Amino acid sequence: MKKLISRREMLTLLAATGASGLVLRASAALNLVPDTQLARPRIPQADPNNPPTIVVLGAGIAGLTAAYELTKAGYNCVLLEASSRVGGRCMTVRSGDLIDEVGNPQICQFDDAPHMYFNAGPARIPSSHRNLMNYCKELGVDLEVFINENKECYYQDDAMFGGKPVKNTEFTTSARGFMAEIMAKSLEKDQLDMPLDQWELETLMGVVRSFGDLSEGDMFKGSTRGGYTHGGYLDHGEAKEPLAFRELLKSGFLRNALSASEGETGPILFQPVGGMDNIAKGFARKLENRIFYNVLVSSVKLNNSGVEVIYEHGGVKYKLDADYCFNCIPSHLMAGIDNNFPSEYVAAMRYPQRGEAYKSAFQTKERFWENDDIYGGISWVNAPIRQIWYPINGIHKEKGVILSAYDFGGGMAFTKLSQEQRIEAAIQQGEKLHPDYRQQVEKGITIAWHRMNHMLGCAARWPGSRGGANAQAEEMFQTLRRPAGGRHYMIGDQVTKHSAWQESAILSAHWAIKDMLSRQPGNASMPGTPLS
Amino acid sequence: MKKLISRREMLTLLAATGASGLVLRASAALNLVPDTQLARPRIPQADPNNPPTIVVLGAGIAGLTAAYELTKAGYNCVLLEASSRVGGRCMTVRSGDLIDEVGNPQICQFDDAPHMYFNAGPARIPSSHRNLMNYCKELGVDLEVFINENKECYYQDDAMFGGKPVKNTEFTTSARGFMAEIMAKSLEKDQLDMPLDQWELETLMGVVRSFGDLSEGDMFKGSTRGGYTHGGYLDHGEAKEPLAFRELLKSGFLRNALSASEGETGPILFQPVGGMDNIAKGFARKLENRIFYNVLVSSVKLNNSGVEVIYEHGGVKYKLDADYCFNCIPSHLMAGIDNNFPSEYVAAMRYPQRGEAYKSAFQTKERFWENDDIYGGISWVNAPIRQIWYPINGIHKEKGVILSAYDFGGGMAFTKLSQEQRIEAAIQQGEKLHPDYRQQVEKGITIAWHRMNHMLGCAARWPGSRGGANAQAEEMFQTLRRPAGGRHYMIGDQVTKHSAWQESAILSAHWAIKDMLSRQPGNASMPGTPLS
Repeated sequence: MKKLISRREMLTLLAATGASGLVLRASAALNLVPDTQLARPRIPQADPNNPPTIVVLGAGIAGLTAAYELTKAGYNCVLLEASSRVGGRCMTVRSGDLIDEVGNPQICQFDDAPHMYFNAGPARIPSSHRNLMNYCKELGVDLEVFINENKECYYQDDAMFGGKPVKNTEFTTSARGFMAEIMAKSLEKDQLDMPLDQWELETLMGVVRSFGDLSEGDMFKGSTRGGYTHGGYLDHGEAKEPLAFRELLKSGFLRNALSASEGETGPILFQPVGGMDNIAKGFARKLENRIFYNVLVSSVKLNNSGVEVIYEHGGVKYKLDADYCFNCIPSHLMAGIDNNFPSEYVAAMRYPQRGEAYKSAFQTKERFWENDDIYGGISWVNAPIRQIWYPINGIHKEKGVILSAYDFGGGMAFTKLSQEQRIEAAIQQGEKLHPDYRQQVEKGITIAWHRMNHMLGCAARWPGSRGGANAQAEEMFQTLRRPAGGRHYMIGDQVTKHSAWQESAILSAHWAIKDMLSRQPGNASMPGTPLS
Repeated sequence: MKKLISRREMLTLLAATGASGLVLRASAALNLVPDTQLARPRIPQADPNNPPTIVVLGAGIAGLTAAYELTKAGYNCVLLEASSRVGGRCMTVRSGDLIDEVGNPQICQFDDAPHMYFNAGPARIPSSHRNLMNYCKELGVDLEVFINENKECYYQDDAMFGGKPVKNTEFTTSARGFMAEIMAKSLEKDQLDMPLDQWELETLMGVVRSFGDLSEGDMFKGSTRGGYTHGGYLDHGEAKEPLAFRELLKSGFLRNALSASEGETGPILFQPVGGMDNIAKGFARKLENRIFYNVLVSSVKLNNSGVEVIYEHGGVKYKLDADYCFNCIPSHLMAGIDNNFPSEYVAAMRYPQRGEAYKSAFQTKERFWENDDIYGGISWVNAPIRQIWYPINGIHKEKGVILSAYDFGGGMAFTKLSQEQRIEAAIQQGEKLHPDYRQQVEKGITIAWHRMNHMLGCAARWPGSRGGANAQAEEMFQTLRRPAGGRHYMIGDQVTKHSAWQESAILSAHWAIKDMLSRQPGNASMPGTPLS
């Protein structure tokens, strides 16, 4: 067994070989530390005779997490929700459900069956999102695999092959083949320049040949990875001819086709069986009688002993005092609700840009994609619909619900259109991939998250999460994370650097609870007497 | 919209740019013909007063397919099976099941629960296997996604990092990064040699940078694709440092790590909910009273009007006459059963090499892999166990069944060992990946397919399916595909060029039925009168 080479030894070794030209990096990062730790706060049980009172504003995933954890620890929690359902953007649309888009309300007309649903907000749970996975386990939410990348899906781009859709498997097989050929050629030429010994170079050449499935002479002449023209079972199969690399270069999809399953979509992805909102409902089951719906908050004020919330329900105004407030109302809306927060706190609420996101979905007469070997996955389209998602739920049943458009920023061509125009445009774009699309689709729904009632915006975007940080943004971010008056916490993915994921919403609630606990001297139960 | 460029135009275009040095291939293969067609034979209904008689030998997938299709068409089918179960290698092991390995019979002691099973034979259904998928639909076999590649799984090789296991995501992220760096460097140097215009070259550079997630200066300095050392949600995350490329080169796994999900494991993979043998059971439900178990065939003879089969059951010998025989007994065993086949037919039965395959499985006390973010997928080990498979079924339940070894050829180190030694060796090898493996595993089972009763061999291997064809092998193959005496068909994956897949077994039965029909002049019902 070879010895583990230390980083220092390796650097020395590489320096010795003269790492000129091509540098082989040497940091032997054997750090197997997990990406996210389970961050569940350990909350000491509250004094049952004197539990602290908590008001949670908004029954999104962050609010539900906070209410669930604190209720479990014996706190006296009340959760106020503006709409008539839990989950916020964690929303599944089924037969009869309201899509409460301002100016374009719709009632979903899908057939009423367990598999005929549409996850209008988050639709994917990466297995690396440990806290969310852990809640699914704890709340008894059954999971099934979600398919993101499927080589049987298509790339369609008017700039490539005259607009003819290309199967992902042919696209990526050809792209890898040509890239491998380029590498192999340059390795042959440059081998003497490289700090590799003969064995290493030969190993690398083997890697390159295998990557592209190169033929003799290190040429890419097609691969059965891209499919067969015929045969392959009863007799010898002939590989399809490779696609022209020059055509592939014409499509912007080439850039990401070889790294499509990376980052958040790299791990195994899941969806709850029956709809994403089963997570929100799982929390809600544990919060019976603590959630109040159709409540409009009209004032949130800090006072000497906590937070005073004034809200309206059924035409009546109510006042509610609590020791602490956990607030996942979208911060740009909260900034417009009467409050006495410090001015820099309100400025921070207004600071981040709010995302736009548009989705639409169609019920289909048949699961036509399954006849094309497509089971789940995403086709990429260079048009405003951007993507078509095929459901992995309801395999081999008669009908299904597909995502027919997903515009996640930049233009929002669809939201300017009427409902009828939105549907028609999605059909026209989808027809380029599926010739009988128009005949297949029925009962379309559309959702513009930036126009949804009680939200008017999708995920907040803080500069700095993907580069571009600046001092002002960072100061705003830190201001909004600190509790106003030590008593009012903004929560939700909106106070994270990784918004638009439920894991972030959960972590924001965990963080706020831990911060609250850390500010209590004895850390056992809440100080003072209840004020209600 | 750009016009579709014809192949000829493209070749001309490339010739014009002078395709010297690096050749950009130009075959615009826009052929979207599916890889396998649905090959289900259309069988005219038999005359109900005079149905042809069919004897099927062996209730493997091929035999079940033949019996199912012909029974549906009104043929009088009888299926004789040597063991006490249907499926052949399509075998799921559950609590109380017998593993009938010669010299090492075992009764499975797993806990009795729906998710506590082990698919000892085929365990994956590629969605591209249309005929098998179609039967699942028709027979009501519920499917769920099977996970093959999971970036949270490990590579472990004593030659690399001193034997420390490396997460797939770190391994592949670093490998891609360094390969992209090599490509980028050579593109910068060689750009003038290439028949690419400036725009194409820049596009290609973008592809390469994205492929490897290169940093400024086209250097690979690590990527969050490989995970974070900390953060990434509530605050900015730091990417892990890259692994040393020189270490990666030491492992043979590098060769296939970047092309792990290709070929048969490229499409979305499925498994039947509850066990692979639900497919065999699905067929069997449709063949009530037509399947006879524990039958040992002692003679198969052609005569003037069909095939005469002599078999033994419960100590009694029986004679059965049929118009046709479909035979999926392993051909090397069939060659030893009394027959009057032409000598070249028997020689062809003996010709292909029979595969060896060894698997073992452990019940575990906990689903320890889920605490490591592993949900399904395969860890690769450079040791005789080769692989560890983590179940995707039973997510978040208490226990699970893992595949703890899968030796698919070349040595069969395990089969020489006693049952206790097999288990101990698998534990010792698995401990290198999972420190508490020994404490976690319980109730191990092992299966050596080449020693299983009634089989004594795994998939037949014909030269030529992956190159290496020769005239003799091809002649043997064609001989075995033709019906002996026009009445006796060998079926099963053993008479295909793509053995070890259920799709091939199905296609072999479809082919044989079609061949039988094509030899009948009227093609409507069988000639002559029944002989029974």
